[in-house]
Parts: sequence; structure tokens; C-alpha cells
Amino acid sequence: MAGDGRSSLLQTWNSCGYYRLVGMRVVRADEEGSEFELEITPDHLQAYGTAHGGILAGLVDAAMGLAILGRAPAGEGCATVELKVNFVAGARPGPVRGHGRVVSEGRRTVVAWGEARDAGGGLLACGLGTFQRIPAEKAP
Amino acid sequence: MAGDGRSSLLQTWNSCGYYRLVGMRVVRADEEGSEFELEITPDHLQAYGTAHGGILAGLVDAAMGLAILGRAPAGEGCATVELKVNFVAGARPGPVRGHGRVVSEGRRTVVAWGEARDAGGGLLACGLGTFQRIPAEKAP
Amino acid sequence: MAGDGRSSLLQTWNSCGYYRLVGMRVVRADEEGSEFELEITPDHLQAYGTAHGGILAGLVDAAMGLAILGRAPAGEGCATVELKVNFVAGARPGPVRGHGRVVSEGRRTVVAWGEARDAGGGLLACGLGTFQRIPAEKAP
Amino acid sequence: MAGDGRSSLLQTWNSCGYYRLVGMRVVRADEEGSEFELEITPDHLQAYGTAHGGILAGLVDAAMGLAILGRAPAGEGCATVELKVNFVAGARPGPVRGHGRVVSEGRRTVVAWGEARDAGGGLLACGLGTFQRIPAEKAP
Repeated sequence: MAGDGRSSLLQTWNSCGYYRLVGMRVVRADEEGSEFELEITPDHLQAYGTAHGGILAGLVDAAMGLAILGRAPAGEGCATVELKVNFVAGARPGPVRGHGRVVSEGRRTVVAWGEARDAGGGLLACGLGTFQRIPAEKAP
Repeated sequence: MAGDGRSSLLQTWNSCGYYRLVGMRVVRADEEGSEFELEITPDHLQAYGTAHGGILAGLVDAAMGLAILGRAPAGEGCATVELKVNFVAGARPGPVRGHGRVVSEGRRTVVAWGEARDAGGGLLACGLGTFQRIPAEKAP
Repeated sequence: MAGDGRSSLLQTWNSCGYYRLVGMRVVRADEEGSEFELEITPDHLQAYGTAHGGILAGLVDAAMGLAILGRAPAGEGCATVELKVNFVAGARPGPVRGHGRVVSEGRRTVVAWGEARDAGGGLLACGLGTFQRIPAEKAP
Repeated sequence: MAGDGRSSLLQTWNSCGYYRLVGMRVVRADEEGSEFELEITPDHLQAYGTAHGGILAGLVDAAMGLAILGRAPAGEGCATVELKVNFVAGARPGPVRGHGRVVSEGRRTVVAWGEARDAGGGLLACGLGTFQRIPAEKAP
């Protein structure tokens, strides 16, 4: 994917409803993987005062998906088939970084790794997911 | 947990930041399991026009967690250790129901099932998760 | 799949190397799901005296796979894309039953549930897996 | 764990029933992780001619578990709480290597990564699992 394709990829995703709702931004998506920024705010918390699982699972899912798109031929899409996330520490309000990378790339299926870390680099959550490639001519 | 405990349980969770941000509501949490309501809106969508994985993963996680709390002794808490979700159909804007139930209850660990269905009862996502029980004296 | 197809399905799988090595037998595979028998012996144990995770994961995987084949058109195959198993109790030497059923059947992908129980019906392990359908003309 | 503890760790596991049944050997387990050897034979195959999921899941589970024990204080044990494995390529008869490493170490729970590769280094399966630490005084 050319440089232009990549900046348009970031723009497309950063302007979608979910990313805006939770305040999540993809800042890089290329052959090496993806990087995300997210500020945990009171709007993300469950009743115990740390980020709800949906916020971290969403970040890990997105980090894996954009890592796949960052390496894919222009116009190709992908869909999450399934996702497993381990939550290793509670995320309190403050900045979080997401990172994704491709583990195995098949013709129709891609396996990816995603993780979320706090400002000090401490691991908050990590996951392993399976994605279906969507050829450019069928991509939404 | 007495009836009063249960309605306070629902109130506590329905007023937390994340539930309000995504518009998710737990409507039942008892010995049989949990039921949730969520209206998918444009704010929940990814770039392809269906709900982002984080929304459905969050609903499945919450449905499992409240199924556990609905059966737990008063004041006991729980934390998601890990979660696996299969996404079986794209969720377009409209009402979604979540449902959770306990699969296996150990002294320290509980395994739960969660699922999300569209208005016609069609399965959107399902998952299996592991939770740690938090005794009342240590619960946040 | 006709009755003959089904008995030949059971025969084919019960005579494969792995089933014979671990002493696992599929006794039913039809529209409703699959049933397996396995006797846990000292050959299946890890260093702590209960069945190794590989034995229960293999039983859960097989129970899911045969539940899929038991409903599939004659000659169709399936491959495990991924599998998640929760181990809820240690399995000591003695009889174990496996059971699988289809949770969601797509055109190319099937999601299935599998579980293993001891002689008293106690849950030992349960899992959720993703399978790829292999059309009859491509099945091995 | 001292050098003696480590060689005794390897011996203990390499002589357990399951490792012997499937012909699996742990050759290293230390602070860096674990390494396993396994020769896929006709006894490991399912009806399609590649290794059954139970064999690769068992190898991945073992690789994660021994990676944990290789770093743990002498006498400490661990139990697999749950395990997720992606099967990315069919394993034909021939040598396979397993590798495990710790992803996150908590006071009671450890998250680990495991993988299996063929003789050419090609990825066959990979997984992410959750383990419970068993203090030395309670270890079996």
C-alpha cells in the first residue's frame, strides 16, 4: 500500500463512529504493525473504577485489524472472526497505547497479536485473534 | 442476594461510565443469568458500517460478568481474567439483546457464557470467559 | 448424511491414529451433535496425576469437529481454525464422556461447543472453537 | 531454580505418562522459556492425514506450562486454567519443535505464549493461555 493509501486508511478509521465515541486513534499502520492512542476517561470505566473490558478488547481488536490492513494490498479489507483477550491489569484514567502485529498470514485467514500498555509500558491486556481477509472487490 | 441487593446491583452498573457511553443497560441479573439491552447506533460502527468488535465484546463481557454477580453473595465482585468472542454476523443499527449465564462456578474462578442477538433472535456474537471472584471484603 | 454415511463416518474416525493412540471413540455424530467415550489411563497423565491438557483439548476438539461432520452434507470435511478450552477440574483415571454441538453454521465457517464430563456428570473442560468447512470436492 | 532443580524438572515431566505416550520431550525450561521436541508419527494423525488438534494443543499447553515452571521458585507448580490455540498449518509426519514463554506474571496468575513449528521453522500452531500458580506447599 502506497503512502497515500496509508494516510487515507488512517483517516478512514479515525473518523468512524466507534473510534470517535471512545476517543481512539490509529497513529501508524504499516508492514511492521499498528500503533494506537487512547486516553482512558471516566466515560470508559465500569463500576469498579477501571476501564471496562469492552474498551480494552476494542483497542486490541482494532490494533490487530489495522496491523492486517497496514500490510494488505490496497483496498483489501478484513473482518474479525474471533478474538481472545487476557486482561492482566486494571486500566485507570490516563493514556494507553495499543499495538498490533501479524502473526501468520494465510490466503484467506490471518492470525494477529494485539496488546494495550499504560504510560509506563506496563501490560494491561493482550490478545490473539483470527481475521478473514476480504478481497478488494468484495470489501465494503 | 436479596431483591433490594439486585435492584441496587442493576442501578450501580447502569450508571457507570461505560454503560452510559455505549447506551448499554442490564435489565436482569439473577440466579438464571443476565439480560442486557443495547441499541446499535452510528456511534458504534467501524469503517465498514457494522458495530465495532469492542461494542459486541463489551456486551458479551458485561453479560457474563453480571450473570456471575447475579448469583453471587451480596457484596462479592468479579473481574474478567480473559474472554474469547466469536463474531458470527455483522450488527447493523438497531436493537441488540445480550445474555449471560454461568457455566462453572469454582471457589475462586468462574467460567461464563455470553451472547448477543439481533431483534430477530439471530446470533451476532458469542463468547466464553474466565472470571476471578472478589470476596466482599476485598471488592472495590 | 444417510445412515450409512454416518456409520462410515464413525468408522473412519475411530480407526485414525490419534483416536487409537489415546483410546478415544466417537459413538454418535448426527444433527443433534456428537458423543465420545474415553477412558483416562496412567498414559494420559501429566506429572501431577491428572489428565494432560492435550488429552482434554483433543477430546473437546474432536467432539466439536464430529458434531459439525454429523450435520454436514456427505463428503464434506472440516478443519479446526482455532480452539479455546477452559479446564475446570482435574481428570483422574476413569471414564470420560465428550459432547459437541454446533453453535452457528455459516457458509464457510462453523462455530461449535465442546465439553468433557466425568462419570458423575461433573464438568471437566469446555470449549468454543472455529472451524472451516471443506467442500466435498476439496476434502482430503 | 538451581541447575539441579531444572534437570530434575525436565526428568519429572519427560517421564510422565502423557509425554511418553505422544513422544514429547522438554529439552529446556529456564528464565527465557521452554523448548520441546516431538516427532509427528502416524499415531498422531486424524482422518485427513495431519496431526490431530489434541497433539498440537498438548504441545502448546506443555510449552507454556514448562516456560512458567522454568522461571518459578523451586517446588512451585502451575495448572492450565484455559488455553486458546490457532492452528495455522497441517502438521505432517516429521519433527516438530515447541516453544513457550511467559507474557505476564502475576502473583496468582500467569499468562503465557506457546507455539509449534515444523523442521523448516514454519508456524504450525500458536496459542495464549492462562495459568494458576500453585505455591510449593500446595503443589502435587
